[in-house]
Amino acid sequence: MTTGDEYQLEHLISKRADAREKIHFTTVDLTKQPKDFKPHDKPLHLSWGTPNDGFFPVNSISVEIQDSPFESSLNFHHTNNSLEQLPKDLKKLDLSLEKDKKSVNIVKRGEDKSLIDIRQGFQYSMHSGMDQLNQFCKDFIERVHKPGYNEWTTTLSTGAGDGILKTMDAILNPGDVVLMEEFTFVPSLMMIRECGATGVPIKLSVNSHSEGIDLDYLTNLLENWETLKPGMNKPKALYTIPTGQNPTGLTQSVEFRKKVYALAEKYDFIIIEDDPYGYLTLPPFKKPDGVVKLDEFITVEEYLKDHVTPSYLTIDTKGRVLRIETFSKLFAPGLRIGFIVGHKRLIDVILRYAAVVTKFPSGVAQTLLQNVLYQKFGGVDGWIEWILKMRAVYIHKRNLLINELVKSTIYEKGLIDIIDPKAGMFISVVLKFPEGTDVQEKIDLLNFKFASFGVGVVPGLNMAVDKKFSIERGSFFRLTFAPLNNDEEVVEASKRFVDAVEDFFAKGLEY
Amino acid sequence: MTTGDEYQLEHLISKRADAREKIHFTTVDLTKQPKDFKPHDKPLHLSWGTPNDGFFPVNSISVEIQDSPFESSLNFHHTNNSLEQLPKDLKKLDLSLEKDKKSVNIVKRGEDKSLIDIRQGFQYSMHSGMDQLNQFCKDFIERVHKPGYNEWTTTLSTGAGDGILKTMDAILNPGDVVLMEEFTFVPSLMMIRECGATGVPIKLSVNSHSEGIDLDYLTNLLENWETLKPGMNKPKALYTIPTGQNPTGLTQSVEFRKKVYALAEKYDFIIIEDDPYGYLTLPPFKKPDGVVKLDEFITVEEYLKDHVTPSYLTIDTKGRVLRIETFSKLFAPGLRIGFIVGHKRLIDVILRYAAVVTKFPSGVAQTLLQNVLYQKFGGVDGWIEWILKMRAVYIHKRNLLINELVKSTIYEKGLIDIIDPKAGMFISVVLKFPEGTDVQEKIDLLNFKFASFGVGVVPGLNMAVDKKFSIERGSFFRLTFAPLNNDEEVVEASKRFVDAVEDFFAKGLEY
Repeated sequence: MTTGDEYQLEHLISKRADAREKIHFTTVDLTKQPKDFKPHDKPLHLSWGTPNDGFFPVNSISVEIQDSPFESSLNFHHTNNSLEQLPKDLKKLDLSLEKDKKSVNIVKRGEDKSLIDIRQGFQYSMHSGMDQLNQFCKDFIERVHKPGYNEWTTTLSTGAGDGILKTMDAILNPGDVVLMEEFTFVPSLMMIRECGATGVPIKLSVNSHSEGIDLDYLTNLLENWETLKPGMNKPKALYTIPTGQNPTGLTQSVEFRKKVYALAEKYDFIIIEDDPYGYLTLPPFKKPDGVVKLDEFITVEEYLKDHVTPSYLTIDTKGRVLRIETFSKLFAPGLRIGFIVGHKRLIDVILRYAAVVTKFPSGVAQTLLQNVLYQKFGGVDGWIEWILKMRAVYIHKRNLLINELVKSTIYEKGLIDIIDPKAGMFISVVLKFPEGTDVQEKIDLLNFKFASFGVGVVPGLNMAVDKKFSIERGSFFRLTFAPLNNDEEVVEASKRFVDAVEDFFAKGLEY
Repeated sequence: MTTGDEYQLEHLISKRADAREKIHFTTVDLTKQPKDFKPHDKPLHLSWGTPNDGFFPVNSISVEIQDSPFESSLNFHHTNNSLEQLPKDLKKLDLSLEKDKKSVNIVKRGEDKSLIDIRQGFQYSMHSGMDQLNQFCKDFIERVHKPGYNEWTTTLSTGAGDGILKTMDAILNPGDVVLMEEFTFVPSLMMIRECGATGVPIKLSVNSHSEGIDLDYLTNLLENWETLKPGMNKPKALYTIPTGQNPTGLTQSVEFRKKVYALAEKYDFIIIEDDPYGYLTLPPFKKPDGVVKLDEFITVEEYLKDHVTPSYLTIDTKGRVLRIETFSKLFAPGLRIGFIVGHKRLIDVILRYAAVVTKFPSGVAQTLLQNVLYQKFGGVDGWIEWILKMRAVYIHKRNLLINELVKSTIYEKGLIDIIDPKAGMFISVVLKFPEGTDVQEKIDLLNFKFASFGVGVVPGLNMAVDKKFSIERGSFFRLTFAPLNNDEEVVEASKRFVDAVEDFFAKGLEY
């Protein structure tokens, strides 16, 4: 554990990021201060171009919150065609919230310092975000993923994409290399290239028993880097989505993470951990048996102890991990609010970039979020209770989807393998093509088949860092149950998927 | 006027910006489409990681709007100590709004296509911003500053700073040069340097009769660039704040702009027009005579015809102008919403950058803004009526501040000159130091004097691109009446300013 103020990984900070100078014009050079100088104790400011809140048209805001996801329409429809309405108020099901206000009120000038009022929230603010919300993020991380060293902090971002750009920018010099899961959230490549760096894919094991990254492959690659990647810089970072990986849905156990972290120590690279939906932990698939199983509801303590996989932060002792979070999947993407956790030195570098590229997340969104988090959910634990309700619905929808797949003939015949995710919102369905199949051709064709049968899915190969490198492992599709309106749609979409695959194989892998 | 689709200024687009590739994974390669392919007419999507709006905790939002700025506290206090309450409802003063609803209601799933509902607003959206709000921006520009060519469009930004970064990025290669007013919003330098480019200051005339840029200086500089700036690239752009310039408060007339545009044509550069508060037009200073003069209220038509200085867009025939707007000063900075206007080709380049750096402005903020603009203000003209109310309050506060200055002994003795702004929120006070004064030293000292007297102001030199270059013209301070709570504070702050200057001169320019 580091104890002093000094950051041991200075050599991993990018030169561009560290050289960036923040330019503002209201700072005073105190070295020029006259010796008799005494500042006024009640100064008035004709200096800042910050309009008084009397100019803001908004006087107050009232936000009505639902007590559980899909409160007004939740309709658990089962594959055996029985239909049962979930009791409207999930609170009765041993998931009581302290606060049961439906309405969150945001005032122009308030007294409660844990809330953000309109005067503060609609004004300019610091690049790290408003203190109250930034504090919530710190409290949340302290409770859920306490880092293994002391000198960590957080800064708000405008979402996971912004988090990726800023963490990459903080460490990558032109010519640098980032290791990435071979199938991943490929827009990250844009952020890597923006820094003049390169993403290098590492093999995944895409099967039900895998934890994602092929550790043997990674270890060998690092050991023999100069031979295997001649002329390339040694990796500066590993970009990984360790929980409910996108697109495969795979999750690294904490033991697995320790092995990866050991490699990061040995080969001296940063781990950029992107975790947008890992809080949606999913127990193993269970066939829906006609009524909604509400035994998926657990307590916050159970959840933290047995369900959440601890972040790389918890293993980190050096400030070698940058964790990217977002409120997009758990609250709403339109907030455009996320946060980054890491060593103070790195967050400081990131904040200097924030001054140039995105300033701070919308204060209006911060205001709404903070007031809902405190007035409705009562803080960190109430927020986790909301996540548990989200989780219950995700489990239910995941079960509905997988159930359609496992009872199908294509599954019985062994034409598909299903990766049942331990977290997140993605299921991978691996197609068992005969040996020698032109995977790219058949995947493209099958994708058109899906479109004609009326189901949209994402070919794994679309998310390959390098299609050529990954073609052998690329015969899978990513399916998610997140966007659909109701259970009927989940079941219908799953059926269409099955029918399309059936038809495709029946026609000898032709359209 | 360009008539075809082709952009005549391709050579001014930055290589980095134009080479940027947008990477996403849900696009389909239609060239691989089987010949019998027919897409399903009611597809269901298991593809996108967009949580259904049933997962968003927010069900509805109600926003209470004031009918005029400072509605609840407006208190016009005069320098002669008479006190008169402004009638609460400015609407009675010939400023009627069609819509007089106090409350704006935002629903989860709505029918009105001009509004943004929660389902749309809290979801991911396009990088250009939500269609409805982007359309509002287009309608607004069409009404107020119609460009002189057809192929223009708009994109939302996350505020003026974001607009500056993105416009700079679209055109600047490393080594390029941007001309800037010598005193300016200096954080723009961060954006210019981010592109590897350099900002070069051009002289301003800082006096009451000036329109800002010293045209003779600029013309001569451009004519003799190779001699005067040996080894430097020719300027790729002029960055200007032409209306209520920051910090000087100066405004370029339309005739002046035509001369600058002619230079841009001759020397082939882009004009980046930053205009955050130019809509707050200000008639010449008038001494408050004991009661509030409400004759500053004018109609929308009068305002557009006689008060607003037309943007460089209106002169532009080639797509040579990029205009940066923001809702920060007229609605609230915390929105983090602005927009950029320019040629479609340039906006397209900017959108590819938006995919990497800031995505889209907060949907929560877009939702609130669009609903207020339409439900409360009824669209473009109602929004302009709100601006006129803002303007009336700004005029009033400007008059209060200047009145304190002009009746002071320092003004009578000719120790200061005041630049009465034609627009915006900044007043410059020029100190008439004796010849041979060390301006930097005295400005620094006087700034501490202000702090001890309890008034914060901004030394013009703090906003110099190059202090050495500007020292001769740097003996002024920027004052703004925007942030203070009420008229008493404006008057008190102005008095403190006067007292500090008086004391400083009385002590022979010593602390």
